[in-house]
Amino acid sequence: MSTHRRGLFAGSAAIASAMALPAAAQNAQTGNTPAAQAQAPGFYRFKVGNLTVTTVHDGFFRRPVEGFVRNAPASEVREVLADSFMPPDTLTVPFTVTFVETPRGLVVFDTGTGGQAAPTAGQLATNLRAAGLDLGQVRAVVISHFHGDHITGLTTAQNEPVFPQAEIFVPAAEWAWWTDEGNQTRSPEGQRGNFANTARRFGPYRDRIRQVQDGAEVLPGIRAISAPGHTPGHTCYHVSDGDAQMIFLADVTNRPELMMPRPDWQIVFDFDPEMAVQTRRRMLDRVATDRIRVTGYHFPFPANGYVTRQDQGFRFVPADWTTAL
Amino acid sequence: MSTHRRGLFAGSAAIASAMALPAAAQNAQTGNTPAAQAQAPGFYRFKVGNLTVTTVHDGFFRRPVEGFVRNAPASEVREVLADSFMPPDTLTVPFTVTFVETPRGLVVFDTGTGGQAAPTAGQLATNLRAAGLDLGQVRAVVISHFHGDHITGLTTAQNEPVFPQAEIFVPAAEWAWWTDEGNQTRSPEGQRGNFANTARRFGPYRDRIRQVQDGAEVLPGIRAISAPGHTPGHTCYHVSDGDAQMIFLADVTNRPELMMPRPDWQIVFDFDPEMAVQTRRRMLDRVATDRIRVTGYHFPFPANGYVTRQDQGFRFVPADWTTAL
Repeated sequence: MSTHRRGLFAGSAAIASAMALPAAAQNAQTGNTPAAQAQAPGFYRFKVGNLTVTTVHDGFFRRPVEGFVRNAPASEVREVLADSFMPPDTLTVPFTVTFVETPRGLVVFDTGTGGQAAPTAGQLATNLRAAGLDLGQVRAVVISHFHGDHITGLTTAQNEPVFPQAEIFVPAAEWAWWTDEGNQTRSPEGQRGNFANTARRFGPYRDRIRQVQDGAEVLPGIRAISAPGHTPGHTCYHVSDGDAQMIFLADVTNRPELMMPRPDWQIVFDFDPEMAVQTRRRMLDRVATDRIRVTGYHFPFPANGYVTRQDQGFRFVPADWTTAL
Repeated sequence: MSTHRRGLFAGSAAIASAMALPAAAQNAQTGNTPAAQAQAPGFYRFKVGNLTVTTVHDGFFRRPVEGFVRNAPASEVREVLADSFMPPDTLTVPFTVTFVETPRGLVVFDTGTGGQAAPTAGQLATNLRAAGLDLGQVRAVVISHFHGDHITGLTTAQNEPVFPQAEIFVPAAEWAWWTDEGNQTRSPEGQRGNFANTARRFGPYRDRIRQVQDGAEVLPGIRAISAPGHTPGHTCYHVSDGDAQMIFLADVTNRPELMMPRPDWQIVFDFDPEMAVQTRRRMLDRVATDRIRVTGYHFPFPANGYVTRQDQGFRFVPADWTTAL
């Protein structure tokens, strides 16, 4: 091939293209350009067999990297963040909620923040409407655990139900723990607010709460998988239709960029950190071995992909983005 | 912690929740659920300094995996695809176009397929409008190379200009090659159609074409980087504002899942495969070393991220998705 090869920035004469647009045209153009600053609506769809899964972004909160991991120095945490080109000092923790359209109606796993947490969160209802769905349609709210960012969206700031048509499915072990005030002193100090929030958020749904045991079929094709440690009753859910399957991993990991490479890291939100690590390793091992698609509550949007082994840990592999459902 | 631990699917009595929704309610719900099957509009924004970059999806085409890589058996290609959880027999090649809003107006790198390639492509104009922008606003079309999927969108099927306000910037080496019919016999047989398509697509812009030399500043903050091999004059573009920078890699790789782990693979579309490999290694080495954000024409949407070293090759790391610009 006869193409000339040149060194980068070899100093060949730059064309006078900087002046290519007449000033008048430039101004007109600047005036014509709308202030198009918004991101596309935060929802993404894929199929699991005949079921349509839609992940919907609720926003994010930010916290210092310092103090997030209990059993590793911040310097080491920063190195792992840098491997994923994430900033060193501030951790952005996204919230993305998994919806499943089933023959029995719309199902949602966890509720988002209900606009009552960080000012950078609370976009769930808007993004869901952009997807052609509405929180009011939801027939089943399936809860992984009772941390505030997962259940506060059950009700408004005035504690009115956000899901008027829904039954609420909760892990039995989670219900047992957070509804017994006697467990307050046996809970980490930072998690004791969950007792009051549990009473408050589930209160308006009291006659529509269904406790779910490990392994139980919540609805056809949706089955509970006990995954304790992050909280006493933390639960994942297996969704299947025919041979197709996925698992909602909930908070088995926080951001996968951090915790998949270092599954032994214990984070500040873990109720029983050692059990959380055991569960994390078991669940990641399972989905990596069986190559099962997963969604996660704190995964980067659109929060769906696969888990592969890497070095002594794992790595999250986002699923291919496609308009082809 | 007193949480009971249970084996997975240990057979505890499933609650009778499968019947939890009365049939009437189920039917009503099914009837109420809109056929919400569409994906969110395919655009994504991020900032490079004060410049706003918007990547916009044009669609994709599919081709057999067999025959795509010239110097590796299909079985090995399938293994690498499997590492990224991609299907073994059919390769989906996406088209995502990079736009930059600059003080001098809207700039676009390459044109998309103009709806004249695969029936699964041609969504560029629609997705761009969803982003609040319009192809008619574009003031500068900056071309990486003259393969059909990169230039056909210059004109409609009737060969009317799609960019009435734009100047067209082309790599000088690319222009020289494909406008000289004498090069036909020196071009791979599969690429000879580019001569006619070049004449056809650039024809309506003949007085607005600006040839760009390696290293030249196309517009303030946008600089050409010669990257030959994929075609004789294939060119990347460096975009910067202050300390912030990114590089549009164009077709330095096709899908990164395939060609970053195996930069030495030669694909069927490479004009000069050995030079393409040299260029690929040089460019990937540069952006990995300097941790420069990149976009790519055939990267998975939203087609922006970073390149890291892995084993003997590289790996694409998608940038964190965020609504925070």
